[in-house]
Amino acid sequence: MDHKQESNKTAGNPIRCRAAVARKAGEPLVIEEVIVAPPRAHEVRIKIICTSLCYSDITLWKRNDPGFFPIILGHEAVGVVESVGTSVDEVTEGDIVIPQYLAECKKCSVCTSNKSNLCMKFPFEISTWTHRDKTSRFTDLEGKTLHHFLYISAFSEYTVVDITHLTKLDVSIPPNRACLLSCGVSTGVGAAWRAANVEASSTVAIFGLGVIGLAVAEGARLRGAKKIIGVDVNPEKFEIGKTFGITDFVDSRNCQDKSISEVINEMTDGGADYCFECVGLTNLMHEAFSCCRKGWGKTIVLGVEKSDQELSLNSLVILHTGKTLMGSLFGGLKPKTDIPILAESYIQKMQELQLDKFVTHEMKLEDVNKAFDLLLEGKCLRCVIWMDN
Amino acid sequence: MDHKQESNKTAGNPIRCRAAVARKAGEPLVIEEVIVAPPRAHEVRIKIICTSLCYSDITLWKRNDPGFFPIILGHEAVGVVESVGTSVDEVTEGDIVIPQYLAECKKCSVCTSNKSNLCMKFPFEISTWTHRDKTSRFTDLEGKTLHHFLYISAFSEYTVVDITHLTKLDVSIPPNRACLLSCGVSTGVGAAWRAANVEASSTVAIFGLGVIGLAVAEGARLRGAKKIIGVDVNPEKFEIGKTFGITDFVDSRNCQDKSISEVINEMTDGGADYCFECVGLTNLMHEAFSCCRKGWGKTIVLGVEKSDQELSLNSLVILHTGKTLMGSLFGGLKPKTDIPILAESYIQKMQELQLDKFVTHEMKLEDVNKAFDLLLEGKCLRCVIWMDN
Repeated sequence: MDHKQESNKTAGNPIRCRAAVARKAGEPLVIEEVIVAPPRAHEVRIKIICTSLCYSDITLWKRNDPGFFPIILGHEAVGVVESVGTSVDEVTEGDIVIPQYLAECKKCSVCTSNKSNLCMKFPFEISTWTHRDKTSRFTDLEGKTLHHFLYISAFSEYTVVDITHLTKLDVSIPPNRACLLSCGVSTGVGAAWRAANVEASSTVAIFGLGVIGLAVAEGARLRGAKKIIGVDVNPEKFEIGKTFGITDFVDSRNCQDKSISEVINEMTDGGADYCFECVGLTNLMHEAFSCCRKGWGKTIVLGVEKSDQELSLNSLVILHTGKTLMGSLFGGLKPKTDIPILAESYIQKMQELQLDKFVTHEMKLEDVNKAFDLLLEGKCLRCVIWMDN
Repeated sequence: MDHKQESNKTAGNPIRCRAAVARKAGEPLVIEEVIVAPPRAHEVRIKIICTSLCYSDITLWKRNDPGFFPIILGHEAVGVVESVGTSVDEVTEGDIVIPQYLAECKKCSVCTSNKSNLCMKFPFEISTWTHRDKTSRFTDLEGKTLHHFLYISAFSEYTVVDITHLTKLDVSIPPNRACLLSCGVSTGVGAAWRAANVEASSTVAIFGLGVIGLAVAEGARLRGAKKIIGVDVNPEKFEIGKTFGITDFVDSRNCQDKSISEVINEMTDGGADYCFECVGLTNLMHEAFSCCRKGWGKTIVLGVEKSDQELSLNSLVILHTGKTLMGSLFGGLKPKTDIPILAESYIQKMQELQLDKFVTHEMKLEDVNKAFDLLLEGKCLRCVIWMDN
């Protein structure tokens, strides 16, 4: 049965399907049946093909904020359009789409400019990830509302996403690779390409070698950076890092009597051209700023782990060093414009963009808690969850 | 008698001349005779024609750090070459030169690049402003050393400056205008042109309407900025600000129950494209960052008043807003390359760059303490001190 036939049966009606529900902070997700309402205006209901677990899912899941729960996590995914609401003409039933947490309305003064990827009409907000009408499309079997996560919620066989949060894929790319472009890998590669605009022969320091950090390395490698320094507490990350172009490693737990920035300043003869903070700790942001090059060094903040802390920088150092500090969401990529470019880099350029290497595990939805354990223990990069049985 | 003849009499010998010496923090300068040694290798002895008082002179003079004193202040000046030391081939006796606190060696990897104006061979340092051999060229009549200020010391009829800190002027420009290009005006215009690269039709907010802030406005005006907001505690600054292109004024002492950044966010419908902090207070830097535009706003730190404080920024705000923070010395200008461009803008383009309006007072060296009073009281922009009697 093709997607069109399947859609004809379900379109316009609620769908009962399986989802992994996070009912309490830090507790195992519960596989249960949920009801997914039909898409309203500007919305698309998607059958999720696969979802890869991203550390942001864990960050939210660990955060003891009862207001978030119960919630359906998952935001790095690929799916097929099951049905569309009114006012949707960008996609149709059967299209392959990648959801992304950042909206692109394609109409506001920001989306139509080249200046930024932060859509002005639908700005990213920190804790309200519902639809335009501020409601959820999920209920459990008792009729209680389940919250959306990052406007997506991909640990459900079906979900409803606003069209501004969807990118249509025209190239054929295996779903267990396509899903990676939905968040982490795109953020890292984008940060190197767009936010930082890494130049050939430059030096790069990356703080935190999770998927975002490794994807920064991948982006920097593709740009021809000559020295890419990886910083992590786990030396095992250096081995995998090498395959993404990391040339040097700093074990941040073993810098002897020096700070990380002192070590990197020595390794780079005065600082790296670009520093990327991919963890979300203000002390690492400070270290990154301290070892980006005087005169033109850029420090790009990407990490989210413990953001909402205060970063303290000496004003004389800011003034006298001419360094730049900036943050970036989604690496500065415009989703609908740039995700297809990354997909083509993988498909048409013989895997120039090394997506395969990011996938270390694949499993079924019922094993989703194992994926959480693996990522928490630092034992996987991306674990892809296949939603279909 | 022309300069060449005069030089023949003095070259190679110490010169006894008048200078204004700051002997103690905050106390009136003392006009006394000093001995100016001949230039050593790479050095040039200059007869100062005029010096304009810049707020950085006052900042240092007020700072109760006995290590600085006795010192000859003054760093915004123009002079004529009296004699040159060995290894100097860039200028010769009689040349008109502008000294500047930032070195440009023209040879290091930074000076030969377009990336930065922070010469790597002779980096700007915070409190040692002596020559390459770490000595001063000044002694008082008792034989005691007088310190240099910012590698220059222009409140002396003669001073010795390293060739890397001198820009030769080939265009004929009145000395009481040329001296302005030595520091403050260049810093402000440069910050708009180079550090920020202000675009036409953009919005600009300037915190602090001293000469640097007004020069930022002048630079932004020349770039075609459409809205230039000036922020100051003194509403009188708005009147003079208008002549430099300031279109709107925020009285920072009279924002009712709003913060400055809230007021500016409202005035600009979401933030200014460029914010310039020209005072040197971390709370103003924070306000500037808070009202630069999400997505692409740049905050440029130029102020020095109370730098060496900690600027605290929320890391989530950095991450989620994509704003940029950067510092700049000398506005990002390369002195030897860019000062002549500014001079030409004044001379050849019919005073396109409005230098005249910055000069509010002119006086003789013996009145230098009056200039300090005027600037301290906010009653002048630039007071030009003519060194010759």
